[in-house]
Amino acid sequence: MFRINENYLKLPGSYLFSTVGKKSKAYMDAHPDKKVIKLGIGDVTLPLSPTIIAAIHKATDEMAHKETFKGYAPDLGYEFLRSAISKEYAGRGAEIAIDEIFISDGAKSDSGNIGDIFADDTKIAVCDPVYPVYVDANAMSGRTGDYNPETQRWSSVIYMPCVSENGFAPEIPDEVPDVIYLCFPNNPTGSTITKSELQKWVDYANDNKAVIVYDAAYEAYISEDDVPHSIYECDGALTCAIEMRSFSKNAGFTGTRLGFTVVPKALKAGDVSVNSLWARRHGTKFNGAPYIIQRAGEAVYSPEGQKEISAMVGYYMNNAKIIREGLESAGYTVSGGVNAPYIWLKTPGSMTSWEFFDYLLENANIIGTPGSGFGPSGEGYFRLTAFGTYESTVEAMERIKKL
Amino acid sequence: MFRINENYLKLPGSYLFSTVGKKSKAYMDAHPDKKVIKLGIGDVTLPLSPTIIAAIHKATDEMAHKETFKGYAPDLGYEFLRSAISKEYAGRGAEIAIDEIFISDGAKSDSGNIGDIFADDTKIAVCDPVYPVYVDANAMSGRTGDYNPETQRWSSVIYMPCVSENGFAPEIPDEVPDVIYLCFPNNPTGSTITKSELQKWVDYANDNKAVIVYDAAYEAYISEDDVPHSIYECDGALTCAIEMRSFSKNAGFTGTRLGFTVVPKALKAGDVSVNSLWARRHGTKFNGAPYIIQRAGEAVYSPEGQKEISAMVGYYMNNAKIIREGLESAGYTVSGGVNAPYIWLKTPGSMTSWEFFDYLLENANIIGTPGSGFGPSGEGYFRLTAFGTYESTVEAMERIKKL
Repeated sequence: MFRINENYLKLPGSYLFSTVGKKSKAYMDAHPDKKVIKLGIGDVTLPLSPTIIAAIHKATDEMAHKETFKGYAPDLGYEFLRSAISKEYAGRGAEIAIDEIFISDGAKSDSGNIGDIFADDTKIAVCDPVYPVYVDANAMSGRTGDYNPETQRWSSVIYMPCVSENGFAPEIPDEVPDVIYLCFPNNPTGSTITKSELQKWVDYANDNKAVIVYDAAYEAYISEDDVPHSIYECDGALTCAIEMRSFSKNAGFTGTRLGFTVVPKALKAGDVSVNSLWARRHGTKFNGAPYIIQRAGEAVYSPEGQKEISAMVGYYMNNAKIIREGLESAGYTVSGGVNAPYIWLKTPGSMTSWEFFDYLLENANIIGTPGSGFGPSGEGYFRLTAFGTYESTVEAMERIKKL
Repeated sequence: MFRINENYLKLPGSYLFSTVGKKSKAYMDAHPDKKVIKLGIGDVTLPLSPTIIAAIHKATDEMAHKETFKGYAPDLGYEFLRSAISKEYAGRGAEIAIDEIFISDGAKSDSGNIGDIFADDTKIAVCDPVYPVYVDANAMSGRTGDYNPETQRWSSVIYMPCVSENGFAPEIPDEVPDVIYLCFPNNPTGSTITKSELQKWVDYANDNKAVIVYDAAYEAYISEDDVPHSIYECDGALTCAIEMRSFSKNAGFTGTRLGFTVVPKALKAGDVSVNSLWARRHGTKFNGAPYIIQRAGEAVYSPEGQKEISAMVGYYMNNAKIIREGLESAGYTVSGGVNAPYIWLKTPGSMTSWEFFDYLLENANIIGTPGSGFGPSGEGYFRLTAFGTYESTVEAMERIKKL
């Protein structure tokens, strides 16, 4: 008789963004006359840029002729793309070989799957609040103990609260974790970390033989000089860190799907290179990103592509400035939005995050994301994203100022 | 201190096709003058058809304009594609709702990941020989016990030998499995199963509360009337079967990446619908196939698309006929190639599968796949695929006849 993975039944409610989506849809169905502005999910709105579009068309034409048709991709991804990525790392002073780069369909899949290569009883540490996938994926594999609906915490997870009192920066935990998930610039708080602060984490991980899973999906939004774009800018990161990157937010690939994970060969458990384990997983349970999408990724690294995506990031960061300043002038306490497309605000009065979600939806017809959906320390906070259009962002701030 | 998933270290050697690739490359590097014909990996060679190419171009243009740009896809995939799939099932008498269809990046990922939703100590049954992903993925999650290099078997896996003596059809095993992997038309043997034979498996699974994971990636190659295209053509399959399908082999998407998995809501463990577990995994650890690729998938179901892919399948099946008849006239014992693009041959003399691999590569410059790579009962067999060009297939047979 088959039995299911009972760990799934421990998961509280449904995935955060599904709930936001359902509540939003219910409101819009009931009020078809209202013009709802979505500043909730971190989904981009600008179209793919001309150089990327041209690359997709060109690669598509290659797929139309038997002389240039491409079947299965190499296990790790095409060398043209991995070379471009390796060169970008070199430009930041990080030496990443092309066989340390694994092309994937996105950072969400990778951050969900990376746990597969670690021991069952791995103890993880996460920021609180946190992007839900890290915890949910580990919960699915039974690593997180039991969920307590009252505290909204799993019994076996080490939580590192990121709240206004510590400037939304995690502190080294009392208990030593095996795997530490860090995401900078941070989703959801929009906070960042300086290179010297990140160096402390790298040193801590090396001293304690812990692995840092570093989610750098938002690195393109960094505007300040002392904020590292990659954990490999820190000394010793090659022996303790796995880094994930995405084309979703820098180049607008949320619906185009492309990302990569770096697993350095120097990251070892005894004699075993973690790189070889991920290579085995990648080759067995994944079959590559589409050729035409990998060509689109290559175009991102061209000089024209870089110019275009800089403009795109600039557009969103202007929205972030509008939101940040708009909220501040409306009397809100705000952080983020300087090196990240996320603005993190304290809910007014004594409203909970979900109360503010409803309040904002009903009174200003704006969809945001409740901070508590990202973890208990997110309670009383709320996330707005800069990924809307300029016009809708301006209008959203006007509506909020009138509340 | 972090520890790795030790199950990975139990995996024997590297993934079959990586080994074939490495050996082939070594030969070609050493003999650059030889014209090597690849009939090994199941990779297609015909370009994408005009209707599909047009759909990709059109969708790409949509991604270039903000009015038509698409960000994150719906969790299960776009409704336009799931509706087309649902209609195809209806045409075969199978009622599959659109929220029972999960669009993915391919059947390899799905068949590798499906184990996540079952209990840790799930007992699996597989055909022997078998597509390596089913076993390797389960080995990675520690379900398969220990590997014995001498017998080439895992201690906790139920093997169902498929050999010439039983017409390459699995028999109901003595021990009752929790999850049964079946693939028809079969990779690697090219064998098939009649509807009444498959009905026996469905009845067995329902009687024993087992789940059948049915890999129907090659259904487009079925030429005989009594061979089912879907397990859902059998009575009662909705309460016991998960079906996987791919666009790789019917429409040439090996490098374009698209597939889907059907998880019926009627498949339950107690009160829990397995559909809800897969929905949770899909929404948490995956973020959809690219919009433009889902549009390409939709085009496959258009009348023009269907005509074009029929022609493509016809081309490959003509190759299959050439290989089958060529081998027979050269004195080989052959099966498969009638309802599948794979031809399964008995190695001549007392050669092992890998010996024949080397023999064929060195003497005829043809790359095939050693049967033993698919499991111990594949020893003494060899797989050739019909996915080459017509010209190279004809030439390969001429070379084999001269051996």
